[in-house]
Amino acid sequence: MKFFKEFPKIEYEGPTSTNPLSFKYYNPNEIIDGKSLKDHLKFSVAFWHTFVGAGSDMFGDGTFDRPWNRFSDPMDRAFARIDALIEFCEKLGIEYFCFHDRDIAPEGKTLRETNQMLDKVVNYLKERLKGTNLKLLWGTANLFSNPRYCQGAATSPCADVFAYAAAQVKKALEITKELGGQGYVFWGGREGYETLLNTDMKLELDNLARFLSMAVDYAKKIGFNGQFMIEPKPMEPTKHQYDFDAAHCLAFLKTYGLDPYFKFNIEANHATLAGHTFAHELRYARINGKFCSIDANQGDLMLGWDTDQYPTNIYETTLAMYEVIKAGGFTTGGLNFDAKPRRASYTLRDLVLGHIVAMDTFALGFKIAHRIIKDGKIDKIIEERYASYNEGIGLKIRNNQTNFEELEQYVLDKEVGVPASGRQEELEMMLNYYILTTVKC
Amino acid sequence: MKFFKEFPKIEYEGPTSTNPLSFKYYNPNEIIDGKSLKDHLKFSVAFWHTFVGAGSDMFGDGTFDRPWNRFSDPMDRAFARIDALIEFCEKLGIEYFCFHDRDIAPEGKTLRETNQMLDKVVNYLKERLKGTNLKLLWGTANLFSNPRYCQGAATSPCADVFAYAAAQVKKALEITKELGGQGYVFWGGREGYETLLNTDMKLELDNLARFLSMAVDYAKKIGFNGQFMIEPKPMEPTKHQYDFDAAHCLAFLKTYGLDPYFKFNIEANHATLAGHTFAHELRYARINGKFCSIDANQGDLMLGWDTDQYPTNIYETTLAMYEVIKAGGFTTGGLNFDAKPRRASYTLRDLVLGHIVAMDTFALGFKIAHRIIKDGKIDKIIEERYASYNEGIGLKIRNNQTNFEELEQYVLDKEVGVPASGRQEELEMMLNYYILTTVKC
Amino acid sequence: MKFFKEFPKIEYEGPTSTNPLSFKYYNPNEIIDGKSLKDHLKFSVAFWHTFVGAGSDMFGDGTFDRPWNRFSDPMDRAFARIDALIEFCEKLGIEYFCFHDRDIAPEGKTLRETNQMLDKVVNYLKERLKGTNLKLLWGTANLFSNPRYCQGAATSPCADVFAYAAAQVKKALEITKELGGQGYVFWGGREGYETLLNTDMKLELDNLARFLSMAVDYAKKIGFNGQFMIEPKPMEPTKHQYDFDAAHCLAFLKTYGLDPYFKFNIEANHATLAGHTFAHELRYARINGKFCSIDANQGDLMLGWDTDQYPTNIYETTLAMYEVIKAGGFTTGGLNFDAKPRRASYTLRDLVLGHIVAMDTFALGFKIAHRIIKDGKIDKIIEERYASYNEGIGLKIRNNQTNFEELEQYVLDKEVGVPASGRQEELEMMLNYYILTTVKC
Amino acid sequence: MKFFKEFPKIEYEGPTSTNPLSFKYYNPNEIIDGKSLKDHLKFSVAFWHTFVGAGSDMFGDGTFDRPWNRFSDPMDRAFARIDALIEFCEKLGIEYFCFHDRDIAPEGKTLRETNQMLDKVVNYLKERLKGTNLKLLWGTANLFSNPRYCQGAATSPCADVFAYAAAQVKKALEITKELGGQGYVFWGGREGYETLLNTDMKLELDNLARFLSMAVDYAKKIGFNGQFMIEPKPMEPTKHQYDFDAAHCLAFLKTYGLDPYFKFNIEANHATLAGHTFAHELRYARINGKFCSIDANQGDLMLGWDTDQYPTNIYETTLAMYEVIKAGGFTTGGLNFDAKPRRASYTLRDLVLGHIVAMDTFALGFKIAHRIIKDGKIDKIIEERYASYNEGIGLKIRNNQTNFEELEQYVLDKEVGVPASGRQEELEMMLNYYILTTVKC
Repeated sequence: MKFFKEFPKIEYEGPTSTNPLSFKYYNPNEIIDGKSLKDHLKFSVAFWHTFVGAGSDMFGDGTFDRPWNRFSDPMDRAFARIDALIEFCEKLGIEYFCFHDRDIAPEGKTLRETNQMLDKVVNYLKERLKGTNLKLLWGTANLFSNPRYCQGAATSPCADVFAYAAAQVKKALEITKELGGQGYVFWGGREGYETLLNTDMKLELDNLARFLSMAVDYAKKIGFNGQFMIEPKPMEPTKHQYDFDAAHCLAFLKTYGLDPYFKFNIEANHATLAGHTFAHELRYARINGKFCSIDANQGDLMLGWDTDQYPTNIYETTLAMYEVIKAGGFTTGGLNFDAKPRRASYTLRDLVLGHIVAMDTFALGFKIAHRIIKDGKIDKIIEERYASYNEGIGLKIRNNQTNFEELEQYVLDKEVGVPASGRQEELEMMLNYYILTTVKC
Repeated sequence: MKFFKEFPKIEYEGPTSTNPLSFKYYNPNEIIDGKSLKDHLKFSVAFWHTFVGAGSDMFGDGTFDRPWNRFSDPMDRAFARIDALIEFCEKLGIEYFCFHDRDIAPEGKTLRETNQMLDKVVNYLKERLKGTNLKLLWGTANLFSNPRYCQGAATSPCADVFAYAAAQVKKALEITKELGGQGYVFWGGREGYETLLNTDMKLELDNLARFLSMAVDYAKKIGFNGQFMIEPKPMEPTKHQYDFDAAHCLAFLKTYGLDPYFKFNIEANHATLAGHTFAHELRYARINGKFCSIDANQGDLMLGWDTDQYPTNIYETTLAMYEVIKAGGFTTGGLNFDAKPRRASYTLRDLVLGHIVAMDTFALGFKIAHRIIKDGKIDKIIEERYASYNEGIGLKIRNNQTNFEELEQYVLDKEVGVPASGRQEELEMMLNYYILTTVKC
Repeated sequence: MKFFKEFPKIEYEGPTSTNPLSFKYYNPNEIIDGKSLKDHLKFSVAFWHTFVGAGSDMFGDGTFDRPWNRFSDPMDRAFARIDALIEFCEKLGIEYFCFHDRDIAPEGKTLRETNQMLDKVVNYLKERLKGTNLKLLWGTANLFSNPRYCQGAATSPCADVFAYAAAQVKKALEITKELGGQGYVFWGGREGYETLLNTDMKLELDNLARFLSMAVDYAKKIGFNGQFMIEPKPMEPTKHQYDFDAAHCLAFLKTYGLDPYFKFNIEANHATLAGHTFAHELRYARINGKFCSIDANQGDLMLGWDTDQYPTNIYETTLAMYEVIKAGGFTTGGLNFDAKPRRASYTLRDLVLGHIVAMDTFALGFKIAHRIIKDGKIDKIIEERYASYNEGIGLKIRNNQTNFEELEQYVLDKEVGVPASGRQEELEMMLNYYILTTVKC
Repeated sequence: MKFFKEFPKIEYEGPTSTNPLSFKYYNPNEIIDGKSLKDHLKFSVAFWHTFVGAGSDMFGDGTFDRPWNRFSDPMDRAFARIDALIEFCEKLGIEYFCFHDRDIAPEGKTLRETNQMLDKVVNYLKERLKGTNLKLLWGTANLFSNPRYCQGAATSPCADVFAYAAAQVKKALEITKELGGQGYVFWGGREGYETLLNTDMKLELDNLARFLSMAVDYAKKIGFNGQFMIEPKPMEPTKHQYDFDAAHCLAFLKTYGLDPYFKFNIEANHATLAGHTFAHELRYARINGKFCSIDANQGDLMLGWDTDQYPTNIYETTLAMYEVIKAGGFTTGGLNFDAKPRRASYTLRDLVLGHIVAMDTFALGFKIAHRIIKDGKIDKIIEERYASYNEGIGLKIRNNQTNFEELEQYVLDKEVGVPASGRQEELEMMLNYYILTTVKC
């Protein structure tokens, strides 16, 4: 099946190209620090938004024109979507994808029947991947759409639902392994509460930990070595979600002894819904050794829900890639576009353009961030700002060699004024300089 | 010195009294479960708001009419404020207070000089407390007002500032001990960042942990046994504060091995600024064994800054006291009114009325919550909601006796539908019932 | 058809009743100021939420158990929903309802076909209403669900869509008239923009005005005398909606000369999404002569989307009813429950309980507000606060009899200090008093 | 007096300069469309932030190092600040400034005394301006800092306060005229309410209108022809401000017949606090004929208060300047930097750098916007999007030549689908293209 016949293979044409169907900044084979740009960035398509999403919202029906949805038989549609995936990624030069169990294959009457259909689709997918560059970045299970999950999955008040969710994750781990997935993500959109009035928060959190422990055990058992990740989100659909942000997840993992087994998949729009910048969440994950992967998108800071727009803001991608490079770059993770066209951008062309601008904006962000780090001027300003901890009393503090008594003696008669300027305006000036001078045109 | 001569001792007159200068719900000596209401509630005055706050805001000068501020000499003013404290608490029957080092005594040119003045004020305070029922709930140090702290205290980029802050906390611990304080609170209003562009977050967090460790060590050394607490706040004054909310604090404490030494002081308005309800933060603290004390106030959910209004909303005090009772009540903590009159409520009468309505609203909240728990109907609904974890597969889950394989077998051919209704509307109906039928009139 | 057989007729049992299936505060035939409570409150059911809404959200499928949806034929389902409406309103003693064209009848291939089906349903509805107390409060057209409206209806960039919307409203006006509707509401959920980058805001607003003018003309032509209303909402589904809040609507109406023909339908949750309290929007509408009707519900101030919960907060209903009474009560408007059960509250029982608690909370709010106004103490405090405008220079100001020169002379050597206290804390204390002493138990 | 001796005259050095003390994009004498860049942009310094602001916040004292504040005598300080203004603007090549009455001169015991001091300062200012290029963009009165205004100025419950405010504005109009100010701005930071419980909103709005009418009358009388402006802000310091946003102001002006006399001064950070983008407020002002001037700054969308940061975001300045150019450019208005350094950026160097980056970012925004408009590609996409209103039924709609009956006939049997794609992603791609290719380096 071919769905993107009208589109050329998207090529790099440079920053002055006005051809929408070209990359202006993303030159996949450009070598930076001995590695190609595509290997630095590890772009990934989100199966759900790109091949399943219909463009509906809470007040209106789907608008998206997706030719693969014309198949009335659910299995035919599933196969067609996979064809679309392969073709789309080839056209754009994308080498990774991510999926939920339920967006690649339909749901049957029983889990047994569902799993049988899933197996067929996975087999087809595996076949079709052969000979392509396309690989599975991470897999996951949809534990939120079916009405049975309306009160949680691992945190459901109903043990049968917990069991069902467990079985679903078991299967999802198996197929993720089978497809060579580099990771597995837990996004707990229903793991939270609607009202404290009906909620045993302690039991729910205990159960969530039990669930994740069983997943760890099962992964070991089947030899799945991919990285486990939690994807924080503060709210929506649920009023409060336990994986509110990176810090909430870290507290949870440490409380339940799950710390060694999990890293984070940070989503830009989830960060902002929690009241943090995207860069903040990445920084927090990084310095706590929890950075792994990114769900790349862009929210509207004036709206209180997840708009999952294509990332087009250069400031945000630059600051994000700064954190990624500082973290050592992607290893098992990558840049997954958990983004969808706006509801009015319903054509295949919009879908293609959305990915192009997203890839370009992240490629540019990478180049700018790389240059910032290489130049070292900003990092030097930071180092100098904290230089007082490299000598004298500061070094003693850093080395845990002092105490309150000594510190009191040190300052008792000393004038201690305002530290040197924080230089925020100058640093913002420098950031603009890097943004505007990295691309030569 | 007498400043509240025009006000009578505030007495309990019952719910139908229309005398503003009376308690309608707070009958301090009423015995509930073998303990007086005043011992259940442990009300505390916040020295800073009630005796120092001037009613200024970012766009205007102070409006508050406070006779003790008429003294031009800073030490005279400090003594007068203590007189005002004693008199005020007596009139209202409040038995606890809290303070920062810098609001009870003025700052000198050097720390040595400052400490000398502080000692004089503490001596005076100690003298004046004799023969009263007034006790120190907790002490703290102001590490945010002086310009030297504009870039943090324990997280300052400047080691001298760290040292100065350490010396200040050392002294604050000593006077808290001397005054018999039951706890010591760390509110890190400047411990955070303004921009990631100039920030070494890892070093700052490491230093914060070092600072707190030294505090723990010094408290042991001087035999201060009060409870250490962190008071979370997400932002304001700083753009991002490391003690964002209870979960952030927990993650931090666990990361740095400080978990055994700290509990939380939860403030209502800080909770809401972080995107959580007051009750949520209390619940989170409670189930993680971190509940200790409360900074009682009320924010305006439509405003993005700390308005610190007197708590008057019965829903919020009821849900808060539900958590407190479930946590076993206050031990070393209490209900400190970290609240201030609105800027237009500048008279002493407003100050008195603000405390009356706050005390009344919490007393009523306590009674309603106590009745909810005693009746047990809501708790029973919650228990029944999770009953499936008390038998069969659910019990196996609860007891960690199952795994993904068994759970899959359990559901593979089973129909698993929607759990029983969450009954939120009915529970809200019940809450209204308890609110409206607890007071008999 | 009977769907609510298991439910009794809901009766008033008083505030101490613990029977969920009873009214505690709403005694429909209680006479207050010569009018029954039911005529004061004019409760109305929202057809869409109560009989059509499925309990889906952006992340999950519908959960609601609605027996009338079991009919596979769309027309049968439409008739069954009307049966459900009649039965439901009888059980609850509700005498009004509201609907959109598309929730009472299905959509056909052409507008002609759709209108034919709509006529059949309207005929059936008319028949069924005979002999009942149920009346149409207001009608409206759904100009947001169909994909054709994805870029607006009256503000669509496509003239054909404008025309289609016009034809839909024409028909909706006809059936509203036929059913004796007291008003007609315009909610412009798609009348706004997603990005300024593609938007001709001036043309869109001009077109919106043209559309409303044509509606005014057509209503005159067919002799529809119901009140036209705009229902403000700031955002969702659209990023920015032109009817952002009451003030935006007023500015628009005045700009385009539509002021005489429109009043407002104020929704609680829309008010809060715009950053205003419900009471604020009612006050603004009232003092500008624009108050007409209410979409009663309750939002979650911590969530950035329309949760449309059943109103259960007594503070909010009290302050809302204060405005309604001050506005002279409802005339052509009423209290329409634009509210839905939480997704986990999926049973018919939840649907019934949701309405009961909503009706009770508004009835109680009415009684409290009525008492506040009757007692007059709060109003007197307000009057006294502004008393300086009743004499001297103040009266001259009020009577437009002074100017800057005179005012300057008046104050040039005068000490002008802080006005008398705003007494906010005392007023909040009084509000609690009224809330807690209105119900006797 | 010289305060900026250490700083050179800031010159244009082009985009590749890494000298912080240079302009990279702002070449003041560059001619675009027959006008110099400096005349296009009309940069203005805000006297209050730049020469008075101390760097205090709600939790800490002032940090800013401002040598002119070393004068202990208030009048000496006032004169020194004017010296600083003249020198600063010369160094940066800024040709306009704005002030409040109370930031250029101190307050005395009576208004008479205050006015006498003000006259002296104005005389000095007038003298000092001679021979410079510096001009007054607009003047205003500070009706918010003094405690007397704690409950409003024109909307105060106290007639004396109204009178005092009137007298203050009278004088401010006189000195604005004397100094040749091109406009006069009303920012009503205290014109609003803290709680509806104590507020007569109708009287307050009536009084506000009376106040503004008197100002209009007095301006006519003294022959002041400058443009009157309202500056919208939703909240802070007051809980709700009547001038919430541009639409609220428009509704107010139209309601009270003040429409002909007022335009708007749009502030970026006020726009975002109201839930709008900066560009939205400018667009709304523009299409309603109300655009006049800009208070240029940048907020932090994650913080709920006015941070008034220097504008450094190129997206925002580009979209803002797009509106300004479309509005015909500045006439009596200009770009006033209502911005302040971050509290940690306390040096004079930060103050200079803040202005440089702000000027540069707006100059660049202007160039990009100018190019977007010149190229016309985006405007053409918009035109084409609405092309259906240029012919057939669309033209009839635009020309008010049709009605609901005709429109119904037109669509009754017609298939009306989704309009052409909104192309948001492509437009965002184009915006990035313009941003990155305007500066050549």
